[in-house]
Amino acid sequence: MKSTLSPFYSLNEQPLFQNQPTVLHSLMPHTKIKIYNKDDVVLHHGDVAVRLWLVLKGWVKLTRQTPDGKESIIGLCTEGDVFGEAALFPHANYPYHAQTLAAHTQLAAIPADIIRKLIAENAAFSGVVMELLNERTSQAQLKLEQMSTMSASQRLGCFLLRLCHTQANGSKTLTIPVEKHILAAYLGMKPETLSRSQQQLKPLGLSVTGQDITISNIEKLREFVCNSCSESGSCEAEATG
Amino acid sequence: MKSTLSPFYSLNEQPLFQNQPTVLHSLMPHTKIKIYNKDDVVLHHGDVAVRLWLVLKGWVKLTRQTPDGKESIIGLCTEGDVFGEAALFPHANYPYHAQTLAAHTQLAAIPADIIRKLIAENAAFSGVVMELLNERTSQAQLKLEQMSTMSASQRLGCFLLRLCHTQANGSKTLTIPVEKHILAAYLGMKPETLSRSQQQLKPLGLSVTGQDITISNIEKLREFVCNSCSESGSCEAEATG
Repeated sequence: MKSTLSPFYSLNEQPLFQNQPTVLHSLMPHTKIKIYNKDDVVLHHGDVAVRLWLVLKGWVKLTRQTPDGKESIIGLCTEGDVFGEAALFPHANYPYHAQTLAAHTQLAAIPADIIRKLIAENAAFSGVVMELLNERTSQAQLKLEQMSTMSASQRLGCFLLRLCHTQANGSKTLTIPVEKHILAAYLGMKPETLSRSQQQLKPLGLSVTGQDITISNIEKLREFVCNSCSESGSCEAEATG
Repeated sequence: MKSTLSPFYSLNEQPLFQNQPTVLHSLMPHTKIKIYNKDDVVLHHGDVAVRLWLVLKGWVKLTRQTPDGKESIIGLCTEGDVFGEAALFPHANYPYHAQTLAAHTQLAAIPADIIRKLIAENAAFSGVVMELLNERTSQAQLKLEQMSTMSASQRLGCFLLRLCHTQANGSKTLTIPVEKHILAAYLGMKPETLSRSQQQLKPLGLSVTGQDITISNIEKLREFVCNSCSESGSCEAEATG
């Protein structure tokens, strides 16, 4: 892992700092951009939360382990995502491990005391942070809902539609950014159920070659998935076309 | 549903207002205490969020419906819980239905504009609200984790241990506060799986009579449940004795 006090990459494009030039200006001298290898541990579950993290490039998985040794993946973060929100609160600990899933993963690390000072001083920024926290709850609640309302193949379809949104480039060929057993665990299914789900999506126009997935009829996939989701009509993944 | 501008019940005991006497004083003239019958609808999914709600007594279920007609229960709120956090944000809509589950359910309704004004003016209160939102995320993430790391009977056991915490009165006889099909849906299982789970917990000292459940060996139940949870060691339900 290299650490450098480099100039800003796309930090001003992060939702947290859009329309917050004063905040960004105050953070700049204190924020470090770090570049990680694949499988580097960024933080440990239970560590004192001393930094807030933003993903500039790559993928990070957030996991927890139970005393009897089961691991659960509670988040997969990519470009634009934030983790380590515990740093917003005094005396808090990180409630998960964070580990990179891709080579050259680029993260920005903001010291906890700086961001807490800015929140206390700036009511507008504090409002933005609250929206971020609320969005986090909504995402977790939606995932919970989908565990009971959606089939495994619908959950996979939903993940792919969201990927269309972040990998949008005109074509409908996506690269699955993480290993299959990790994706399966994240979607709450066994690896063999993930393989079966891919097969079940074939009649809807899905074809798989290694890590690449091509979707030939995005409308058909969307209809199959979004009908079983209460966010239908207000979800960013539906706007992909 | 009766509506009254009555004096405060236990609003000052709510976590949101503890150590916030100025905030409570400002809210008092604007907050209404409302008493509901069983099955009253408090708010509709998609309505503009004009009030923040606090449960003073009783139970409220938060549900969402998918376009193809499946309902999911994303929350069961009781004394001390808050719902309708969307009211903290301008132009937001409630992301769920809320309906009472018990007769004489007592709720406090705080107008959105008042609470937003207080948050903008008072950095300390804004910090408390952020902690509330973060706690919401933690709860939802923990429930997600438990869907993959815990068996159905462990999830039921966890719910009962939490109930010991809120119904603590020396004895270990609890009253299940909601109908069984609702509890099953909330715990992400079918009603017949809930019945089977009750049977499976019998050797651990559980006995069921109607809506009443007696736990004869809370330590044994805790060991069975909490070993499969990453919150083990820092969970309020474990402190129940």
